[in-house]
Amino acid sequence: MRAIVISEPGGPDVLTWTEQPDPRPGPGEVLLDVAATAVNRADLLQRQGVYPPPPGVTEVPGLECSGVVAELGEGVTGLAVGDEVCALLAGGGYAERVVVPAGQVLPVPAGVDLVTAASLPEVACTVWSNVVLTAGLVTDELLLVHGGAGGIGTHAIQVGKALGARVAVTAGSAERLERCAALGAEVLVNYKEQDFVEEVRSATDGRGADVVLDNMGAKYLPGNVSVLARNGRLVIIGMQGGVKGELNVGALLGKCGSVTATTLRNRPLDEKAAIVGEVVTQLWPLVEAGTVQPVVHEVLPVERVADAHRAMADGGVFGKLVLRMP
Amino acid sequence: MRAIVISEPGGPDVLTWTEQPDPRPGPGEVLLDVAATAVNRADLLQRQGVYPPPPGVTEVPGLECSGVVAELGEGVTGLAVGDEVCALLAGGGYAERVVVPAGQVLPVPAGVDLVTAASLPEVACTVWSNVVLTAGLVTDELLLVHGGAGGIGTHAIQVGKALGARVAVTAGSAERLERCAALGAEVLVNYKEQDFVEEVRSATDGRGADVVLDNMGAKYLPGNVSVLARNGRLVIIGMQGGVKGELNVGALLGKCGSVTATTLRNRPLDEKAAIVGEVVTQLWPLVEAGTVQPVVHEVLPVERVADAHRAMADGGVFGKLVLRMP
Repeated sequence: MRAIVISEPGGPDVLTWTEQPDPRPGPGEVLLDVAATAVNRADLLQRQGVYPPPPGVTEVPGLECSGVVAELGEGVTGLAVGDEVCALLAGGGYAERVVVPAGQVLPVPAGVDLVTAASLPEVACTVWSNVVLTAGLVTDELLLVHGGAGGIGTHAIQVGKALGARVAVTAGSAERLERCAALGAEVLVNYKEQDFVEEVRSATDGRGADVVLDNMGAKYLPGNVSVLARNGRLVIIGMQGGVKGELNVGALLGKCGSVTATTLRNRPLDEKAAIVGEVVTQLWPLVEAGTVQPVVHEVLPVERVADAHRAMADGGVFGKLVLRMP
Repeated sequence: MRAIVISEPGGPDVLTWTEQPDPRPGPGEVLLDVAATAVNRADLLQRQGVYPPPPGVTEVPGLECSGVVAELGEGVTGLAVGDEVCALLAGGGYAERVVVPAGQVLPVPAGVDLVTAASLPEVACTVWSNVVLTAGLVTDELLLVHGGAGGIGTHAIQVGKALGARVAVTAGSAERLERCAALGAEVLVNYKEQDFVEEVRSATDGRGADVVLDNMGAKYLPGNVSVLARNGRLVIIGMQGGVKGELNVGALLGKCGSVTATTLRNRPLDEKAAIVGEVVTQLWPLVEAGTVQPVVHEVLPVERVADAHRAMADGGVFGKLVLRMP
């Protein structure tokens, strides 16, 4: 098979489409013929050499894909060769074939085409596990989504709305905020010009955000704690603004707030399978009803992966970038 | 009635036993003839003028008491004049009479005498709400309790054991650690001589603590995050080590950990009532079975409240200090 490999840590041009040995499914695993994969910010970090794959995982990047079941490893049930599926991967999606634990394989939701389905596993599992399973967002609460125009952001807006919450977002331009509003965001904050703490407070009569989904880490930590409502839950899923930040324990204690930080890639298989199970039973019906829709900025042939990485780094992508296999 | 008042912010001697107007129960409230109250660290802060009572709450200190129901406010059901009870208070326990919302009144557990019962409401509600309801400690997990020899610590050790967890504690002397061991603590860390991160790691094959109950706040934040196991939950209930600390978001994210900070006193009435309800149904049976026992260092007459505050500040109290009304 062919796959994208990182010839050496560096810029987008180190991504090279080359012949690689075919992976083989072990017990409990499934071999997929990949139809498409999607670009995640983590892929850019992996390419730069600062986010290596977990032990035992292929060096080929790619945290999600869609495709067709080509072979079942020993003991796999509930799937058949020829099934159209999508999958949450620890790596290896930028390839013509990939092996994945059966617990991380999801059906393609009815009404979603196979290539588009590649855009769903990461955002679906990330948003559902953090906003619903960890933070427990419920009706009438306010969800603040940082990076509202990104892949996770555009998905989180829709999930928040579907759960009956009000959604606030931050994004970097009026045009991107307008597109977030079209997805259901009600409180729009241009982070280049406005203070999100003030804006969310003024939109909630001073109450603040019940749940904050954050990709900035250290840089936004003081503001995120400050904007939390009583019993508010901050969930950090990225560290684009740095690793170590100041936590005002007194402010958090005064409002009985919590800060949770999570990652999907390094979780044990049983946790991933549990999340995938919840996504299939709880979220897929919302996708099949059209309440939550895939947001795909563009589908590019995988050979243009360097362009895709450049576009992602430039910050102009709205939603997901999908890479189609030849 | 007579009550302790804080004549002005200051040392233990500002606590004055004086005549005060009797409180009157409003709708949903209960008037108690107080048998005893107990000293909490928050009382020392209130005495120093740095922890004022919430709006609408009496200036008389005292966050818990035991006593006899003297009068029921409008609409109170399930209680009768003459009932022996204990109660979680937002203030006012250092007095001969106190008014409390009915939802914060608990029966005296069978087998516990009325004066001793004054030592239970704060530790019971604090430990159960944080360790069980917030952190969700379960069998076979490791619970690390900072300040293991204090009122909350001695109670938390027993609750942790009762839930089937292993318990690690920090305390400031070998003698205090031995007494913690007698209550069920298995991992003993002298914080004056040992590093709790190292000790807990070495006692758990490197795994760390699943739940940390912390009263130090900022000072212990880096160590507490460091000692957390995968999916570990740090719950901060005090800030004896300062308010603002450094949070290593990367470390927390790598282990999918959480930091929650809570206080009991400022919670809305419905939340307090919900906690009290859980304590009565879940924890009281453990107290009545003798699995979790009150740990009372000494019972002093309320007129000796200044001595009690001095003893608490000196750090030699093991468990709770109770103040008996005349």
